[in-house]
Amino acid sequence: MATLWQHCHVASMVGGSYSIIENAAIITRAGLIEWIGPRAELAPQAGLETVDLAGAWVTPGLIDCHTHAVFGGNRSGEFEQRLQGVSYAEIAAQGGGIASTVRATRAASEEQLLASARQRLEALMRDGVTTVEIKSGYGLDLVNERKMLRVARRLGDALPLTVRSTCLAAHALPPEYAGRADDYIQHICDELLPALAGEGLVDAVDAFCEHLAFSPAQVERVFIKARELGLPVKLHAEQLSSLHGSSLAARYQALSADHLEFMTEDDAIAMAAAGTVAVLLPGAFYFLRETQLPPMDALRRHGVKTALASDLNPGTSPGLSLRLMLNMGCTLFRMTPEEALAGVTTHAATALGLGSTHGTLEAGKVADFVAWQIERPADLAYWLGGDLPKRVVRGGVQSTF
Amino acid sequence: MATLWQHCHVASMVGGSYSIIENAAIITRAGLIEWIGPRAELAPQAGLETVDLAGAWVTPGLIDCHTHAVFGGNRSGEFEQRLQGVSYAEIAAQGGGIASTVRATRAASEEQLLASARQRLEALMRDGVTTVEIKSGYGLDLVNERKMLRVARRLGDALPLTVRSTCLAAHALPPEYAGRADDYIQHICDELLPALAGEGLVDAVDAFCEHLAFSPAQVERVFIKARELGLPVKLHAEQLSSLHGSSLAARYQALSADHLEFMTEDDAIAMAAAGTVAVLLPGAFYFLRETQLPPMDALRRHGVKTALASDLNPGTSPGLSLRLMLNMGCTLFRMTPEEALAGVTTHAATALGLGSTHGTLEAGKVADFVAWQIERPADLAYWLGGDLPKRVVRGGVQSTF
Ligand SMILES: [Zn+2]
Ligand SMILES: [Zn+2]
Repeated sequence: MATLWQHCHVASMVGGSYSIIENAAIITRAGLIEWIGPRAELAPQAGLETVDLAGAWVTPGLIDCHTHAVFGGNRSGEFEQRLQGVSYAEIAAQGGGIASTVRATRAASEEQLLASARQRLEALMRDGVTTVEIKSGYGLDLVNERKMLRVARRLGDALPLTVRSTCLAAHALPPEYAGRADDYIQHICDELLPALAGEGLVDAVDAFCEHLAFSPAQVERVFIKARELGLPVKLHAEQLSSLHGSSLAARYQALSADHLEFMTEDDAIAMAAAGTVAVLLPGAFYFLRETQLPPMDALRRHGVKTALASDLNPGTSPGLSLRLMLNMGCTLFRMTPEEALAGVTTHAATALGLGSTHGTLEAGKVADFVAWQIERPADLAYWLGGDLPKRVVRGGVQSTF
Repeated sequence: MATLWQHCHVASMVGGSYSIIENAAIITRAGLIEWIGPRAELAPQAGLETVDLAGAWVTPGLIDCHTHAVFGGNRSGEFEQRLQGVSYAEIAAQGGGIASTVRATRAASEEQLLASARQRLEALMRDGVTTVEIKSGYGLDLVNERKMLRVARRLGDALPLTVRSTCLAAHALPPEYAGRADDYIQHICDELLPALAGEGLVDAVDAFCEHLAFSPAQVERVFIKARELGLPVKLHAEQLSSLHGSSLAARYQALSADHLEFMTEDDAIAMAAAGTVAVLLPGAFYFLRETQLPPMDALRRHGVKTALASDLNPGTSPGLSLRLMLNMGCTLFRMTPEEALAGVTTHAATALGLGSTHGTLEAGKVADFVAWQIERPADLAYWLGGDLPKRVVRGGVQSTF
């Protein structure tokens, strides 16, 4: 079944720029883009269903390449306490912070996690998201990391959404390993990762490299195991300090290094050489009132592919809108709207290992796109929150939600 | 026709605090709240339609008390140019800035303005907004200010939304009065305001008091005319510098003074004494990357009622989400979630002169409310963007959109 989509303009995002096709047409067949180009160059076609896009601007379906969308509970109570003047130390003493999310996630059933994450993903989808990455990392033991990753897989089955699942067992130290971080890393490498990878639940392996989490040496042990298992790696790096985790990630040909406020120019050079994508997370920067900006100039100068993501998580970025991250990428990080849009399309696809199939509008790629009723592509970064009129097409089929 | 709404908790916002009623019930009749209280205290009722709210948290319908939602064109092109490094001076030389919005608004038909504003209001409504203020101020002559205010009135007729219209003819100097600001003020006072007030298009009168707009003396002439016409006043004040417009507004018992980053403690004392609401606009603060914070401590200390609004406008706050402004009020201005919610309910109602009928959930008030599927009221400020599952009830009737 083939469809001709016409009366539209296209920002195809090929090469990381708008790569605009005015007065365009798209033919989709069997879930893929069969043809895309100027309408005037299209030979007459028979037997196609035709959809009139009424002058819309068509972009690739948006890709949120860094989320922690599956979790139990939420932390709005802590958010409120903090604004009432309660200190972090008091909240931690009450069992708050990430420990509370780990408890709530362990206590939740798979069905409960599925239902709450589904609502959050539906919010993202209303912004035109057609592909999302979901990390584990609040289970921190085999049973509960498996539960989270199973939920991620089930979400991909239940929703018109491509879901990539990342094992982030090395997110934080579970309470039962207090004071024994090396032992926990050993457990991840010897048991947890091999088991979950063997069950087909893991598309990539991630870790949190920071003083308050795991050292570069510990992260490297996880990376070595991932390589043995044939899994690509990613890394939370340089969010709060400079440990050169991003250079370590580059040495392991990581798909991405994420956060990066404190990265150095040498880190950027290493990432560019390795093709490791820089994933910037302005929602966390904003929510934490961070003042150290990621080095956009160095990233541009060295040609590091730069993505933007929601970092959707209960503690530091309860972000339910990827389009808001485009605005924050521009307003806070001074990205251009074009860079920001590339950051949630082609570069986000590369950050998920999907660069050959997703993220741009070209013949042969998956037919995931959004037809926006906007005046120009910059509108996607300009409007602050809210919902823009649009149609979302996934695999050549218009989503209804 | 009466309805019993039950299985809910209520944050009634009476007195500007949550004023929570757990396990509550609400009876609505003929558009008003007839009864509200703990379900257990409700005597058996016959003949009521019953709605099960499934454990939702019910708040007053949200009120966006400061918008410029009606305008022609948008300024995403300028937004993009700025991020590409084009200077404000170059953009102004191209005819950009507010002048471009005035041109586009004058050029647009009433139907075009209606259609574009309707989409923007629908985005606000998806966040639970049931009342919105709309300012004129991009027409800057009688014909075009009338056109904007007529569109505001028509939006109130067309949508399940209470619209209050504010004449902001003293927003900027129209090009045909270049160098003759006093003459334009005279025109507003002698012709424009009396005509539009006579046509019933004006619920309040506003002005922009700033070096780059109008002086306190010019604003005062507008206020005197508004008083003659029996219209309440509001003022854009202390956004970029301290001219004590907010104290001037207080002397005229203004409904509100808005922006206020540069207000002084004396201004706060004057506003508190006059009952003038402080309307904070964190979207503009964020979008302009302002660093001067409004003086929350002084506002609290002197008991100034403090509202939050979107400032929806094409130049400095293209904000389509009032819930995002709750988050920004907390994250950027360090309001508590409770203060923020009061700022878009009871205090916003007062800022529109609707305090006796809207903004809290009490017997006798208009039955505008939102039933949110959230864990606690703080969730409304905590989640960053996106859409929260909800039902919106206006005048006792559930809206469908
Ligand atoms: Zn993360
Ligand atoms: Zn304004």
